[in-house]
This record gives sequence, C-alpha cells and structure tokens, in this order.
Amino acid sequence: MRDIVALKIIHQALSEGRNFLYEYESKELLSLLGMQTMKSLLAKSLEETELAAKNIGFPVVLKIVSPEILHKSDAGGVLIDLKNAQEVKSGYFKIINNVKSKVPQANVMGILVQEMAPPSIEIIAGATRDPQFGPTIMFGIGGILVELIKDVSFGIAPLNKTLAEEMIHKIKSHGILEGTRGLPKADTNEIVNILLKLSEVMTDYPEIDTLDLNPIIVYSKGLKIVDARFILGKGERVESEIQPKALELGALLEPKSVAIIGASKNFDKIGYKILKNIVDAGFNGGIYPINPTAGEILGLKTYASVLDVPEKIDVGVIVVPAQVVPSVIEECVKKEIKGVIIISSGFRDIGQEGAKLEKGILEIAKKGKLRIIGPNCQGVSNPKVGFCATWPLIKKVGNIAVISQSGSIALEIPSFLSKNELGYSKAIALGNKSDVNEAELISFLADDEGTRVITVYSEGIPDGRKLMNAIEKASQKKAVLFLKGGKTEAGKRGVMAHTGSLAGEMKVFEAAIDQSGGICVKNLDELCNAAIAFVTLPVPKGNRLLIITSSGGSGILGSDACEEADLVLSNLSMNTLEKLKKSLPSWCIIRNPVDLTGNVLNNVQLYNDALEIVLDDESVDMVMLIFGDPIPNALETVKHGIDKAFSLGIPVVVNYLGGAEVQIVETEKLQKNGIPVFSTPNQAIIALSYMNKYRENLLKLKNINMN
Amino acid sequence: MRDIVALKIIHQALSEGRNFLYEYESKELLSLLGMQTMKSLLAKSLEETELAAKNIGFPVVLKIVSPEILHKSDAGGVLIDLKNAQEVKSGYFKIINNVKSKVPQANVMGILVQEMAPPSIEIIAGATRDPQFGPTIMFGIGGILVELIKDVSFGIAPLNKTLAEEMIHKIKSHGILEGTRGLPKADTNEIVNILLKLSEVMTDYPEIDTLDLNPIIVYSKGLKIVDARFILGKGERVESEIQPKALELGALLEPKSVAIIGASKNFDKIGYKILKNIVDAGFNGGIYPINPTAGEILGLKTYASVLDVPEKIDVGVIVVPAQVVPSVIEECVKKEIKGVIIISSGFRDIGQEGAKLEKGILEIAKKGKLRIIGPNCQGVSNPKVGFCATWPLIKKVGNIAVISQSGSIALEIPSFLSKNELGYSKAIALGNKSDVNEAELISFLADDEGTRVITVYSEGIPDGRKLMNAIEKASQKKAVLFLKGGKTEAGKRGVMAHTGSLAGEMKVFEAAIDQSGGICVKNLDELCNAAIAFVTLPVPKGNRLLIITSSGGSGILGSDACEEADLVLSNLSMNTLEKLKKSLPSWCIIRNPVDLTGNVLNNVQLYNDALEIVLDDESVDMVMLIFGDPIPNALETVKHGIDKAFSLGIPVVVNYLGGAEVQIVETEKLQKNGIPVFSTPNQAIIALSYMNKYRENLLKLKNINMN
Repeated sequence: MRDIVALKIIHQALSEGRNFLYEYESKELLSLLGMQTMKSLLAKSLEETELAAKNIGFPVVLKIVSPEILHKSDAGGVLIDLKNAQEVKSGYFKIINNVKSKVPQANVMGILVQEMAPPSIEIIAGATRDPQFGPTIMFGIGGILVELIKDVSFGIAPLNKTLAEEMIHKIKSHGILEGTRGLPKADTNEIVNILLKLSEVMTDYPEIDTLDLNPIIVYSKGLKIVDARFILGKGERVESEIQPKALELGALLEPKSVAIIGASKNFDKIGYKILKNIVDAGFNGGIYPINPTAGEILGLKTYASVLDVPEKIDVGVIVVPAQVVPSVIEECVKKEIKGVIIISSGFRDIGQEGAKLEKGILEIAKKGKLRIIGPNCQGVSNPKVGFCATWPLIKKVGNIAVISQSGSIALEIPSFLSKNELGYSKAIALGNKSDVNEAELISFLADDEGTRVITVYSEGIPDGRKLMNAIEKASQKKAVLFLKGGKTEAGKRGVMAHTGSLAGEMKVFEAAIDQSGGICVKNLDELCNAAIAFVTLPVPKGNRLLIITSSGGSGILGSDACEEADLVLSNLSMNTLEKLKKSLPSWCIIRNPVDLTGNVLNNVQLYNDALEIVLDDESVDMVMLIFGDPIPNALETVKHGIDKAFSLGIPVVVNYLGGAEVQIVETEKLQKNGIPVFSTPNQAIIALSYMNKYRENLLKLKNINMN
Repeated sequence: MRDIVALKIIHQALSEGRNFLYEYESKELLSLLGMQTMKSLLAKSLEETELAAKNIGFPVVLKIVSPEILHKSDAGGVLIDLKNAQEVKSGYFKIINNVKSKVPQANVMGILVQEMAPPSIEIIAGATRDPQFGPTIMFGIGGILVELIKDVSFGIAPLNKTLAEEMIHKIKSHGILEGTRGLPKADTNEIVNILLKLSEVMTDYPEIDTLDLNPIIVYSKGLKIVDARFILGKGERVESEIQPKALELGALLEPKSVAIIGASKNFDKIGYKILKNIVDAGFNGGIYPINPTAGEILGLKTYASVLDVPEKIDVGVIVVPAQVVPSVIEECVKKEIKGVIIISSGFRDIGQEGAKLEKGILEIAKKGKLRIIGPNCQGVSNPKVGFCATWPLIKKVGNIAVISQSGSIALEIPSFLSKNELGYSKAIALGNKSDVNEAELISFLADDEGTRVITVYSEGIPDGRKLMNAIEKASQKKAVLFLKGGKTEAGKRGVMAHTGSLAGEMKVFEAAIDQSGGICVKNLDELCNAAIAFVTLPVPKGNRLLIITSSGGSGILGSDACEEADLVLSNLSMNTLEKLKKSLPSWCIIRNPVDLTGNVLNNVQLYNDALEIVLDDESVDMVMLIFGDPIPNALETVKHGIDKAFSLGIPVVVNYLGGAEVQIVETEKLQKNGIPVFSTPNQAIIALSYMNKYRENLLKLKNINMN
C-alpha cells in the first residue's frame, strides 16, 4: 500500500538529487509507513528550539540537520539528556559551534529536537536490496560491540511471523533480549512487528534502497525508534522469469539418443573421451558421432552434421571450438534436437568478446526451443541409463544428485561416493549456465524418483527468488544441500548505512537458503558426508544422540562434537539403564556413551545387545556406533539392531577407528550394506547435525506455510 | 613480595570464616598490592556518608556493604552519578530502603562512597586458580554483551609483557580498544601493567583464589579500577614433582628384550595377539612369553615367571588379571626390569577399589625404580625396532609420534597415516597413566631423532606446569599437536566471580598449550592432517598462499578457506604475472589462483612451468596445487618444481579432485614420494594454517624468552 504523502517525500529528495532523506523527513516517512517513532520537531532558530523542547517535554535530545553531515555524533552534532530550558539554550550554541569548527562547509538546515528515550536494550533493524535476492531485512543488537562482532541476522522479504521470530532467535547474543541482569525482558512481539513492517515497506516502495532503524530502544512493553536513515535507489523491481517446464529437462538428462558434435579419433581429445565414456557406460540409445572426416570412431559411423543423421536426436554434446558453436546450434535447431550440452569454452569465461558469442547462441536456442547446459562445462552424467557425457567415467548408480557450477566438484562428489560404496543419480556440471541453472534443476530433481538427495555447488545465482522457490519445493520431499563458493565480500553495498555494510553476500545467501528449507554446508567434506547420511538414513525425530563405543576416548570426541552441532546426548531412562546393566557384563560402563570397553573385542555380540535395548528408550533419536578396536564381523553383529533402528526411523552412523586391515574390510562391508561409516567422530556428528537441521527445516516450512 | 598489611586483611577475613573480602577491604588490599583504585571511603551513617562525599568530590557513587549481598545492583544497593549533597542524602535513604525490602536478612555494614569515573571503555581483568595450570589470568571487554558471548582470553601465570599483550590481542572484540567511533584509543600499556600485576599477586598470595577487577574503565591515558572482588581459598601452592630422567623411558619405548606376562595360546586373547604382533613386527631382541603352563607359544619357550628367565629383561608387558598385577610387579622389581606396560584393566577405571589397587602397584614400582605405562592401556608400538606391544599390528615406520590416553586413537592415527603412505615413530597408549604421562613423553620425544612431529590426545593432565615446560622444550625443535578430549564445562569454578565462571577447562587448556608454543587442534581430522603436513613439509616463512589449479571452483573453495585459517592469497608481482603470461597459453587465467583450466589435461607440463615461476616471487610463502581433472603423471610433472620449493623452504600441498581411478593412482604416487595430498581444499588449508601457526609460535617463544 503506497501512501501519497510518503511518495512525495521520496520524490522530493530524488528531485533534489539526494539519494538520502534528512532525519526529519525520515521520521515523517516512518510514521506515514506506520512505524512508531519518537516525538520530534525541526527547529530553525534558538527560539524555535526552545519552544519545541517545551512542547515535547524534558528531557530532550538536540541533533544537527545538515546534508553534509551523515554521522552527526562525530561532528559534535548530538546532545542528549537536556533537562531544562537553560540546558537546551546552551546546548543549542554548543552544537552550532561544534559543527562550525568540525565541518565548516556544512549547511545547517536546523536542529531536530527530540523526545529522550529512557535507556534500555538497543537493537538495530534495517533493510537493503540484495542483488540476488531482492529486499532483505536485517536484525541485530545495537551498540558498538555488536558492530565489531557483526552479530546480525537476515531474512529475505516477504517475511512472516515465523521468519521474523527466527531472525530474532538466530543472533548469538540473543540472550540479551531475555531479561539479563539489569535489563528488562524485551518486547519481542514489537520487534517482530517492526521486521514485518520493514518487509512490507521494502516490497511496497522499490524507491527505498536501504533503510536503517538504529538504534531502536526496546522496553518490556513497546519500543522507540530513535533514529532512522533512508537511502534511495533507482526503484527497479526484480521480476522473475517464468519457470520453464521441468519436462523439457527430462530429454537433456535422460536422452534416448545423443550426438557428439566434435567427436574425435584422438585419444587425448575430449571429443574422444566423451564418446568412449558414453559407449563404455552402456548407453543403449542411438549414439551419433559428428565428425566430417573420421568415417568411423569406436565402431560407430560418423556424420558430417547432425542434419545428416537419419534418426531423431534428443541431445547434442558439443565439443567444437567456440567460433563454430553458433552454426552448430543452428543445425541443432533445424534438426529439432531438444537440448545441447556445450562443453566448449571460450564464451563468457574469456571476457566480453566471448560473452557476446554466448548471448548469440542463447538467442538462437531460445527461438528454436533448444535448451542449453553450459557452455564451458564438464557435461552431464546419468549412470543409470549409461549417459556419461563427461569425464572421467564413474559408473556407480545411486540416489544422490549433483548440480555443480564447477566440473571438478561435479565429478569429485561421485568419486568420493564411489570410495564409500555409494553411487549417484545424476551429475550436472553447469559451467557458464547461460540457460539451464540451479533453480530449474533443483525443481526438476525434486520430482525425480531416482534422486533422494540433491547436492549443489554454486558460486552465485542470477535469480535468487527462483532458487528459493525451487529449494522450498524440493525440500518438502528431499534434502537440498548447498555449498556456496566465493565468500569474498565484494557483494557489499558500501558503507552509507549499517544494513548495507553488514549484508555480505554470503550471509544473505545463507539466510535465503535456510529460509527456503535448504541446508548450507561449510565445505566439501561436509557436503559429501551429509549427502551420505541423507541417502542412507531415516530423518531423526529429534536431536538426542546415543553413543555405543568400545573406545572411551572416541566416545568423548563424539560427545565433544555434539555441542557445536546442536545435538545433545540422550538421557537414558532408569528402566533402560537397568536393562543394560542386566544384559551387559560388569566391565561395561553404563551411561551415555555406553562404553563396552576394549573387552568387547571377544564378545562383539554386545554391540547388538546394547543397541537393541537403547532403541526402545524414548530419549534416543539417533545412534552412533563406534568400533574403536579391530573388531571382526561388525556388520553381521549389528545388522539386526540397525534394521530395527531404521524401521523405527532412528538413524545409526558408524565410526570405525584404530582397526588397521580389519577396519578396511569391515568398513567396506558395512558401507556395501547401506550403513554409513564416517572416518572420524566429528564428521559423523556433523552429518547427523545436518539431518537434525533438516528435521527442523521441515517443521519450519510447515509453520511458515501455516503462518 | 608479600605485604604485611595485605596479609592482615586476608587473614582477618579468613579468621571470620569469610571466603571473600568486603569491597572496602578489596580496595585497600588492591592499593597495597600496587594497583590504582578509585578514591572511596566507608561510611557507617548518613552523616559519615555526606562527609565522605564532600571529601571525595562530586559526582559520587554510593554502594551498599553487606556480607549477605554479593550482587549489589540486583539488591538496589548501587546509585551512581550523585551530583550534590542533596542527591547523596536522598540516595542514602533509597539504598537503605531498597536493601531492606529486597534482602531483609542483610546485615548492613555501611555505605561505600566512591569517586565517579567518567564513562569510557569498560574492561574486565581477573585471575583464578586452574586445577591443572594454577594461577591463570583473564582479560575481556566489560559489559553485558561480552558476558553473553564470553569473549575473554586467558594466560597462565607468570605472564610477561609479550604474553600480556597477546592476551589483549586475542579477544574477538579487540577492535574496540583501537579507538572506534565515539570511544578513545585505549591505553593498552596500562592494561598490560594490570595483567602483569595480577600475575604477580596470584604468585605471591596463594591465599587469593579468585580476583575480579570489574569493571575497569580505560581512557586514552590511564585507567580506573571501579570494582574489585576477592575470593579467598586454602592457599595451597601446587608444586611440580621433579621430572624423572627421560633416559629411563628409552628402555621402555625401545627395549632390547621383552617379557609378555600373561602370554596365551588362545588366538582370541590379547596375551596371544601382542606376542604374535611383536614376533610379526620382527622384534630382534629377546622375547619371553610368561605363562605357567603353555610350554611354548609361537615356537617360543614360555616361563612360569620373569624370575625364571635367564637373560636380562628390559620391559614387561602385563596382560594378567588386575588382582595378580601387584605380585607380578613385585617379581618385575626383583628381576630389575626397567619398565612395564600394563594392559590389564580393573584399576582406577573401575572406581575406588581399583584405584587403591593402582596406588599399591605404583608404590611398589616407585620403590623398585620400575616405570609404568598404563594400567588399562592399549600398549606401545615402535615399528622401527619391531616392538609392537599393542594391537592391531601397524608396521609402517615414519617420523610422527603418537601419545594418546585412548588406545583407539593411539592406533587410529597410524592406521590413517598408513592409508596416506606415511608411518609413525612411536605410538604410546597411556590409559590410566598412573606413572608415565604426556609431559614426560613429550620431553623424551623432543630429543628423539626418529620423531619429527608429536601428536597428543589427552583428556586432562595432572600437572599442567610440567606439561607446559615439556611442550615449550619440544616446540623449539618440532611441532607438538594437541587434541583435548572432554569439553564438558564441569571444570568451572562456580559463579561467585566472573573470572571463575568464564574459565572453562577447555579455554584455559588451550591458552596454556598455546602459550607454550604447542598447537591445539579442533578434532581428529585436523590432528591427522596437520601431522601429515608437518612431517612432509618445510615450515613456511609467512602466511601468503599461492594456488595453481585446473579447477576454478576448487580454487575458489581453497581461497574461501583461507580467511578463517588466517592465511591470505599472495599478491603476485607485476614481473611474475608477466612471466606467467609469457610462458602459459592464452586460455590460462593469470592471477591468484592461477587457473590452468581443464585444458591443461593434455598439457600437464604447465603445472610445473607455473610452479617454478611463482616460486621466485617474494610474495609466495606456500603453494597449493589442485589437480581438478583426471590428470595423468601428476607426480612426474611437478616433482622438479616441488623439489625446488622444498629447497627454498616453501611448503607445497596437493589436492586431487574429480579424477576417479586416475586420482587414486596419482594420489598414491605423490604420497609415496613424500608429497602430501589432502582430500579437500579445506583440509589442505587447515593443515597449512597450523604450519603458519607454528611459525608464529616460534617467533612468540623467542619474544617471550627475550622479554
């Protein structure tokens, strides 16, 4: 709802060439926008100042108003707690003199006389426009310390109550709002209202680029906005493109026939490697090498052009030099090919010249309804149908999908999974992603039955909203794990306002993924390990962990890792403890971790005994089994208990430590039977913590949608 | 230097059964101890209060004095900024009334009238006695926020200037001392003086258990201690035992002959496994299985007792039941065996009864000059001499030593190293560590030529000072990597004083290790990866990293990991950039990371070309090579450049990603040639960051010792 007077204030500033509002304008605008602000009056003389103070009521605050002075305190332009007419008078002269000596060039527009808010908790709230996600709301505790440690949280507009409440809970120094010594319990309902209001204002007024409410003083009942700063912008609204139908991607990722355009006889060339990998992977559709001179490669007849192929072609894999790509694309369109995967580099990746070329092919493709993956990408692999249009060849089929801007990471994840006896459903390297991007693929894979977990590596995305929608859709059915590369703070929006300077690209990105129900991981290890947990385990029902170990030390390392991971150790019931005592030998240590000690080496069955007992305890949401000795037949021993756990929806992870050769054999057996084995306690705990996070996300999504 | 009047104040309180000082006593004591305090007077009536205020000069602060009231503000017992006699008078009654209604049982001793310090930066300094490390000094920024985020640093007394300065630099919100908006640049020299003074006082006055100076108000010149709180204790001084000669450990870790006391024919028994492992490891000294009935095991003659063995025995490995151990130990003493490794459990590990048994055997051993490793431990392995008195058998010899309270972790590290084509020098599992402990072993291994890196896992140590000395000694020659298990905050010292409640066991532990030049790692992955870096690489000369990659994305992940790891990307000189441009093809991206792109696949030599060029750049302190494609002959290609780097003292780490089978082959080749390959960019960066930390530690140790 746009207000006419509000617009007038904004347009007045813009027409004067200002990209900011004076404080009195800010306050007027704020109150027009429905936000409670402090009583204040603009005075243009000593007399007006004295009168204003009297009208507002003592004590008052005086503040300079000048277009040249943004940081008023630094210029000596702020005096607080003036208790009577006398103090106001001398204060007036003091400010005028300070400003004259510190900022001699300043044009003084007047003095803002303002109600003095009794001291209490100071917070900051603000909003900015993120280049990827649009209107973004910020919350933090005010004061210089928090500015130093940057303890703020973000939410992408539109917010609702659940999201606003979560923003408040997310900050580290959240405890300060709960009524610590000397301070009241803050009126968080009112803070929520402010955040919701900011969200609304940023949506309604695209002319507002950044908005700081700083400080806001919060009481046990109500709050007072002491100062506000508006930065104005061009008023562009970001509009999402209409999402293309996911169906169209089916042919690209699971084609019935493929042409390799630029196939080669030279073993060193990608045009040979890809063709060979498709053949070796056992692709059983039509394979058409396109090469004007070769005649035949790997026993397959070659064609000079796709137009010469007599059969229908679903997908073209393009490996010819960049300059040739436009004409190849024209031919693909003519041939009614559904999509191409452009491996060739030399486009946006090499600068302006290449970017023009890229734009050109995209236009041809769009007209011809041809979808593009790449260019400058490492291809696509779908091992289930043997469509391995990439390199190296990794054949193991599984249920983890990989979407990656980087080819190396797209292939490293399947490499890593293979070593852990797991496979992948699809690996898609996006490269320059001129057409098909993460959002669309996530949306497609959300409905892909072969995919149970989606992993993503990305360095930035063109349309944040579309991504958020896709993640929200997918997260209802399966976990979306996101690794963001490129933490440089280049995305910062200058220092004119706090909110802008605090809104690093990474923080806003994480807030956006989180808000959509996706899971941001910190590094490649976490991405791989979390994927393994999600694809093998049921989602836990809570965050309470039970550890069964033969190694006290490893049990301690597991317990230590819990705190940072937001997991807690299960508090076993007296009944369970009694059962354990009865069923385990006296040398076992009955608590959590349940320590079977090294003596278990010759009595491995105890692992299963303990496991089956603790599974019946209401307090056990997840289990970690630690084999801390070269324990043989680990799989056979615990298989029954783990089956029981999975059937109860309780995830079980395994650590196998200090076992030398036995460890290698047993780990492989466990992994081949779908039981995840992590190399250290901390890696296992981190993987579980992301499962717990997903559980919380599902609850949150439910709340957000009910809200 | 103990002051008579100061002692009188302390003993007065103790004789009254108080374990704390009243504020006026605290202030008097503080000034006797040479610390600047605020002017203050104790008044016992309204008249005295008015007089005191006049003498001190307005404005003043009034504070209640009562043994029942420790948190004066909460009781309404503090009023600040009283500007004149009138305000003092009404303030007096207000305080008396507040206290009467809020703490009716309080005995009011009087009112403390105090000078009012002008507002500025508030800090907190304090001292406590850590059960492991003794007098420990704390520093932090004051105020409620920092209390919430617990941003404090610790130093173990005695401090010197370097250590005190480092404490100030260590806190996260350190920036606040550097003159941020509206606040002065803090007089850090004076803060250093306070910390040094605290260190001195805690050493001189063992009767002081905990001391809070909170808040201290710091100005651009000088500071004012506003409030002080003393908690008194029993006044025990912790005395270190005299360090036994490291020589004695030589026989235990590198024996010429060994008796396995409790050797068995039963394959399942530890008494068989250990004997077999020693035989299989190729131990070429005397091996004497002790078993009263077996006759012969693994072709070796058995004896009923060590006393029956005709030859000299260096070490006994004891696997008999706990109850039998005392008599076995008696026999070992009689036989003049130098040391025993007690595998048997059933001692302190099972409670009081066992602890008594353990104490008993320790006494026998001490009298008989017999050293003990264990009991309840997983033994010792020295693969170089084939002395594998543990299980499983891990044969690979190398230069990493492992000291671990936990057996599983003691063996997991060699297991992990083996998988990475590296070996270990010694692995020692300490178990209950009744005699030989970490400190002594670190001291021994400091001089051990076969050991180039010392890794330690410990859950707590009996004598922190001894450990600090040992680490400091060893760190001069080799890195000591420390993983502390058991982060529970059970070690906290109650909440009577801030310093006590903030001094969690872990934080003090980390400060102590750090101060000694040792390196605390966060988890088992870091311990293993850092050990690999230290044993294979030269110590870098700075923290500037150069990345050469074929994978843009992996290069970004490497760069991203730098920030948290305190590494920066090298800023290559124009000259180097020119040389790179000339020597590399146009499709390479010349900056840092140097991106050879996937095209390098058929031109692997470029890796070495780029590497040799950047090594000549002054800005390159360390290098990460990322093979982000299935690149063959990685080792052969870069060997020359890496040799050059090592000869220049520049460490080079490798990541190999997305290479499937080629990756497995090439990784193994690189590792076998002493080049460390880490599984992800972040793991490589963390390992390098610990090397950089060690470089800083060496500098710091030098400064501390010069100081």
